[in-house]
Amino acid sequence: MIAHPVVRRARAALLAPLLVVALAAHAPAQADPLPSWNDGAAKRAILALVRETTTPNGPHFVAPAARIATFDQDGTLWVEHPIYAQVMYALDRVPEVVARKPELRAVEPFRTVLSGNHDAIAQLSMAELEKILAATLSGTTTQEFDADVARWLATARHPRWNRPYTELVYQPMLEAMRFLRANGYRTYIVTGGGQDFVRVYADRVYGVPPEQVVGTAGATRFTHDAAGRPVLVKEPKLLLDDDAQGKPEGIHLVIGRVPVAAFGNSAGDRQMLEYAGAGGAGRLMMLVLHDDAQREYAYGPAQGLPGTGVGTFPQQLLDEARAKGWTVISMQRDWKRIFPFEP
Amino acid sequence: MIAHPVVRRARAALLAPLLVVALAAHAPAQADPLPSWNDGAAKRAILALVRETTTPNGPHFVAPAARIATFDQDGTLWVEHPIYAQVMYALDRVPEVVARKPELRAVEPFRTVLSGNHDAIAQLSMAELEKILAATLSGTTTQEFDADVARWLATARHPRWNRPYTELVYQPMLEAMRFLRANGYRTYIVTGGGQDFVRVYADRVYGVPPEQVVGTAGATRFTHDAAGRPVLVKEPKLLLDDDAQGKPEGIHLVIGRVPVAAFGNSAGDRQMLEYAGAGGAGRLMMLVLHDDAQREYAYGPAQGLPGTGVGTFPQQLLDEARAKGWTVISMQRDWKRIFPFEP
Repeated sequence: MIAHPVVRRARAALLAPLLVVALAAHAPAQADPLPSWNDGAAKRAILALVRETTTPNGPHFVAPAARIATFDQDGTLWVEHPIYAQVMYALDRVPEVVARKPELRAVEPFRTVLSGNHDAIAQLSMAELEKILAATLSGTTTQEFDADVARWLATARHPRWNRPYTELVYQPMLEAMRFLRANGYRTYIVTGGGQDFVRVYADRVYGVPPEQVVGTAGATRFTHDAAGRPVLVKEPKLLLDDDAQGKPEGIHLVIGRVPVAAFGNSAGDRQMLEYAGAGGAGRLMMLVLHDDAQREYAYGPAQGLPGTGVGTFPQQLLDEARAKGWTVISMQRDWKRIFPFEP
Repeated sequence: MIAHPVVRRARAALLAPLLVVALAAHAPAQADPLPSWNDGAAKRAILALVRETTTPNGPHFVAPAARIATFDQDGTLWVEHPIYAQVMYALDRVPEVVARKPELRAVEPFRTVLSGNHDAIAQLSMAELEKILAATLSGTTTQEFDADVARWLATARHPRWNRPYTELVYQPMLEAMRFLRANGYRTYIVTGGGQDFVRVYADRVYGVPPEQVVGTAGATRFTHDAAGRPVLVKEPKLLLDDDAQGKPEGIHLVIGRVPVAAFGNSAGDRQMLEYAGAGGAGRLMMLVLHDDAQREYAYGPAQGLPGTGVGTFPQQLLDEARAKGWTVISMQRDWKRIFPFEP
């Protein structure tokens, strides 16, 4: 049925306001969802992933239920230098732990930490730090632990910026997470750090609820407190070592799906990125390269800082990224702004 | 502005069809959301939980993000007698495992299983069954395992009903899960059974996606297959023993929140129900009592079947339930219909 020109004009007049409304409704979606990213391969890769995986009937369409994006935390979502925030927390808790267990006072590495000698503390090995983590991250109920971490976060300050650690998050990554969520993705943190530690602030800081934080986890023991209430006590026994090969294992345990996108910044994220890549074409694997000594730090292949066991990023990983088509994010070139507090 | 009566009547005439539409749209919400439940304390407890936790500003209101309901599987969502479906699967896999590892042929309990002597197999202890589970539930990639379980489910039949195990689910519980989800709850399965096993069918059968299945889990090892693709191989090493005191531990690990409602049917669910109860008033803890020998089975305190190590429900648990205000569901009295296939 072909309408008479007058009818068509009348229809057009009637539809015009609807079109305006429709266009207005679309306008926000056309604003730049990643304003802190400079135009470049990294920004375009994120935009392309979302476009391709949400285009119905497209070759790389992903059903909403399977839209999973995983993010390492330390060095990928927030600052990890000069040392992981969680290690700072553990060091700060040592006096309290020693007060409960005085026999530790004369034992290394606790003696060094109590000495207050910053140079000696900075020289502690990862094995010694792990002893401190095991002693300080256990022995309390999960609720006591949460409250203690929350108190610490409210007062602790990063030595360089003199700001709470939770302000030292990367604005471009917050935008990437929000953009993915606005397109049906669920954003998970998959961290070598402590699952319980990160859960305390992940919802507030990243918009990631507790059930979407996968991390290194100790066993917990179900028991009752003095008032007879059921509680879980944190045990000094490792349940899940969520780093390197442990990341795919943790993803399988907690999510049970292969991520469509994975973001990391170190050798500890390599297996997670490989695992996401196993999903085939139309996947996104990204590595943050810390190459901005002025605004943040330069380390790894950017060779700004000496190795401290934090954020190991060997040249080999950069080569693998190139060979496998993973996208490297240069903090210096790709990020217009690093932190939310910058003007 | 007061409209002339004629205008009011005209408006009423115009609005009448809209009112009908509006009322019709409301009608389904007022239909009984639990049609397979007889009126009684159990049905009323579920209705009350949803009403109270979703009433804004009410004393027991729960924010949507915290609406978590956890369900045991065996004996709570589907039939567990005469033996767990997963144990049947493991027994059926023994010939294949022995073909791969011929040295097991002469070793107990594999020899008994291969003998095909049903009486002897029925006498195997839980410790012997666990040896079979460890051997049969490991050694493959997670993908191979999923495919193998899917094949088995398609052909295996329950000896009494001669139907696939996935049809032997309790219709009233499916309705309770749907009703909770329609009111903003996320429904989790928290099972002593294998997490990977249950994930194969949980989405299709219960509407529970993989990330909402918490279960007993073995370690997985990240490696590459012959074609160089990254895979996870199931290891014979226990990672999470998700039964009894392990259920709150598993809930903390995977969900990180205390459930608002918890459903079980045996001593292995006691700690999960206690843990949910720790959330305070306005929580719902329920235990399915198998007291219907005619339509299903009667065991536990209903004393229909001899103990087989399946679904242990000592009198003590019934006493605890009464003391703590947990609701006991009588299959005989509370359930109008047991299975979806019943007329």
